[in-house]
Amino acid sequence: MTALDDLIEALKRLPGVGQKSAQRMAYHLLQHDREGARRMAASLTAAMAQVGNCQRCHTFSEAPVCAICGDAQRDARLLCVVESPADQAALERTGSYRGYYFVLQGRLSPLDGLSTQAIGAEQLLLRAAETAVEEVIVATSFTAEGEATAHVLAEALRSRGIRATRLARGVPVGSELEYVDLGTIAHALTDRR
Amino acid sequence: MTALDDLIEALKRLPGVGQKSAQRMAYHLLQHDREGARRMAASLTAAMAQVGNCQRCHTFSEAPVCAICGDAQRDARLLCVVESPADQAALERTGSYRGYYFVLQGRLSPLDGLSTQAIGAEQLLLRAAETAVEEVIVATSFTAEGEATAHVLAEALRSRGIRATRLARGVPVGSELEYVDLGTIAHALTDRR
Repeated sequence: MTALDDLIEALKRLPGVGQKSAQRMAYHLLQHDREGARRMAASLTAAMAQVGNCQRCHTFSEAPVCAICGDAQRDARLLCVVESPADQAALERTGSYRGYYFVLQGRLSPLDGLSTQAIGAEQLLLRAAETAVEEVIVATSFTAEGEATAHVLAEALRSRGIRATRLARGVPVGSELEYVDLGTIAHALTDRR
Repeated sequence: MTALDDLIEALKRLPGVGQKSAQRMAYHLLQHDREGARRMAASLTAAMAQVGNCQRCHTFSEAPVCAICGDAQRDARLLCVVESPADQAALERTGSYRGYYFVLQGRLSPLDGLSTQAIGAEQLLLRAAETAVEEVIVATSFTAEGEATAHVLAEALRSRGIRATRLARGVPVGSELEYVDLGTIAHALTDRR
């Protein structure tokens, strides 16, 4: 295996990158952007060495405690549970949530061997049991696995006397009713306000 | 700038990768494939250090002369000119060409400052002047710039008494005539056989 084949194989591990894209990327770097390739190698090494997980919420963090968990100005009564740092980033970008987060290690997926323990549910229950917390917003995905995860977590939280809520389901902003799927319309009707 | 932001910036230099994909890639590597990220860093470093250009045809090669140029079994009467190692790889995959190659450094593009000298036309003329060469197949792209490059190269080759041909233009295999653009049909009519 040549160094070029090896690079193509390595690039194929990126999500959404197949043989053709990996080849195009490798050729581009070798022909037009060797400096970019060297920078990428250094950034990968640095990120893997420096980026760990926040002790409190498990999101990506270079410090032991992330910037959000370390921000005393946020609303300690609210704790929002998400499946990944990417989901947390999406919520943060809305600018409409001022509480703290707890980032799971994925969602329940018995087929992939992801149990409540594997996704970090126990640490969540410990974190949610802190006295300041009044409400846990379960913001897992609205997929079958995300819903199952939300159900299991909400049950566990409620059995410990902690209030658990879920993000509202409904018609997305900017969409025409005609093109919205029936399940979404049915939920929007049920949850009307 | 954190190590994570830095990694996202570096990944954005890959062709076809914007902010969202770069973020998804960085999150994926950090959360699910740290081993893959380390391997990618090593492969990038190794490829940039080891992969150079073949002295004869200028394609990517780890040895001073690439495997194709070093293969005495190929047909020395044919020399095929392409714009990039990727185009060469596509031709090789067809398995229907047994001659040698010459890889240009791109195509003529006066706006980007790519002159005949910058793309390596002089080396091509030297290579094509070798006594064994009987025909140079100009396989640059069928875009405006690729056609202009082909025209300039073919003129230069012919003025030196070297036979220059071009890949056939026509209807792609598997396409229905109704959906083929008019320029292609016109060319296919002219070049009918």
